[in-house]
Amino acid sequence: LKRIKKQISMKLKGIDENQLIKILTLPVKKDTSVLRGIGDDAAIIRDKKNKFLLITTDILIENIHFKIAEAESYQIGHKALACNISDIAACGGRPKYALISLGLPKNLSLNFIKGIYRGIKKLANRYKITIVGGDISSSEKLTINITLLGFAKRENLVFRDGAKVGDRIFVTGKLGGSGKGKHLKFSPRVNEALILTKKYKINSMIDLSDGLAQDLYNIISRSKTGAYIHEDCIPLSSEAENIDSALYEGEDFELLFTAPERESEKIKGSRAGKLKITEIGRIVEKSKGFKIIGKDKKAKEVSLKYAFKHF
Amino acid sequence: LKRIKKQISMKLKGIDENQLIKILTLPVKKDTSVLRGIGDDAAIIRDKKNKFLLITTDILIENIHFKIAEAESYQIGHKALACNISDIAACGGRPKYALISLGLPKNLSLNFIKGIYRGIKKLANRYKITIVGGDISSSEKLTINITLLGFAKRENLVFRDGAKVGDRIFVTGKLGGSGKGKHLKFSPRVNEALILTKKYKINSMIDLSDGLAQDLYNIISRSKTGAYIHEDCIPLSSEAENIDSALYEGEDFELLFTAPERESEKIKGSRAGKLKITEIGRIVEKSKGFKIIGKDKKAKEVSLKYAFKHF
Repeated sequence: LKRIKKQISMKLKGIDENQLIKILTLPVKKDTSVLRGIGDDAAIIRDKKNKFLLITTDILIENIHFKIAEAESYQIGHKALACNISDIAACGGRPKYALISLGLPKNLSLNFIKGIYRGIKKLANRYKITIVGGDISSSEKLTINITLLGFAKRENLVFRDGAKVGDRIFVTGKLGGSGKGKHLKFSPRVNEALILTKKYKINSMIDLSDGLAQDLYNIISRSKTGAYIHEDCIPLSSEAENIDSALYEGEDFELLFTAPERESEKIKGSRAGKLKITEIGRIVEKSKGFKIIGKDKKAKEVSLKYAFKHF
Repeated sequence: LKRIKKQISMKLKGIDENQLIKILTLPVKKDTSVLRGIGDDAAIIRDKKNKFLLITTDILIENIHFKIAEAESYQIGHKALACNISDIAACGGRPKYALISLGLPKNLSLNFIKGIYRGIKKLANRYKITIVGGDISSSEKLTINITLLGFAKRENLVFRDGAKVGDRIFVTGKLGGSGKGKHLKFSPRVNEALILTKKYKINSMIDLSDGLAQDLYNIISRSKTGAYIHEDCIPLSSEAENIDSALYEGEDFELLFTAPERESEKIKGSRAGKLKITEIGRIVEKSKGFKIIGKDKKAKEVSLKYAFKHF
């Protein structure tokens, strides 16, 4: 299940989201057509011989993921679709069909709703996505649920759980400070992911939605490995206050991926489209843990306690 | 866009849902892989030679579609998935993959959430549906958005817009009074639709979610025809108060379909599985309007002003 929310701190009777998902999703029936289900960026389903169907869904709710007073209507629409596109990109896919469910407060103006759709449609056109359906209901809080379908060729397909000990860890672009505006207007990395997965052997990939700490943890926990990253190497955006912005704030929507050491020389310092790629660390054995090497050269455990929690 | 809500009367600045959809969905880019998009029960996409991908989505919001005090938790889960299954059934498809987005109030008990999932999973297992993904967020009101994918063979595929002048109009089961409990525990008509579409030439089909008046209007407006129905022939359930229950209350989730006159003798009084099929009228030219022949043999225009409105 994906998380694309601003930092909130609430308790659902003391249960955190990962526990909640575990409780709710087991037991799941085995379906051999489903390569990856709950837990990856998108569900991955065998469609044809060399074609895989990808499906992802995200729910955005007023005051949780955006505030109407702080965002233009078209930015809300843009973000709602963009974070779904980012999930498809992270699997090496191209987005194709979208369904849009809206819960609309009765006091919302028609112009505001048109603005949301303008943001959605502009982005849909840019990525050649067709809006094929949806649902509309009244609601107390503005709610947008988008489901996005895409397709991937076998040669591009990449999962979260494929990281191998010895892999180098890379990110596209610069991290941190997205909350200052970028989270409302970012470009999902579809073409960059297609270039990367075509040119190099990529073992695992995820989009950076919850912050580098949580998202890299998602890769290593599912790949049953550890990771060392270097504070010095992490590319900070000019909006980032410090390294914690990159580690914990989330919503950068850049790509985080791992590739075998022998690919490293080719990838390091190269570009995916216009985006710079930076090597930030390596995958290690699980027993070595998840550590960040500070500017003082000391290794310390990466804490997840500051990472985004939903409840 | 599908509507599966209890009767509410609200105004979104005086705009009704159909106007809203019109305003928001135009212009839509032409995509030749999309056979039917917004406006049918499900989006219908060409997948393989004899295989079509169906996608539908429904958003259910607390106090709009259900009240927590009036429904068991598993019934809410059941309904949320069942109305999506009903949409796939109405196209002649089999449901296959579901994605579940939940907006959860922080004061909701974990047991209640487990109950919702129990309702979803029991029904998913019955119809061999795999839950492949979803999203969880905090929310003020309990919100459930389910997206359901299914597949149909060409021989079973049926649309809303295929009704022809001269077709006879049929319904499965009995109509009306669903609000007294059936709307929380109905069985979507998947197998019945597969039997019907396999055995007979069916020109158009829809599931009865908004009431016979609105749903038959959806068929004839998209098919560019009129319709005459006979009050005497409409099969009322024991919970229905009168004919208006069948015409306007909605949420019966039976099948409404049309077939050529020559099929009528075979279909009339037959069964789809255990369900009785009843002929209730015929498709006429558009200029003849949409009329109901009362018990007094007088024809009067079917009013849509009592039909379900979302805003």
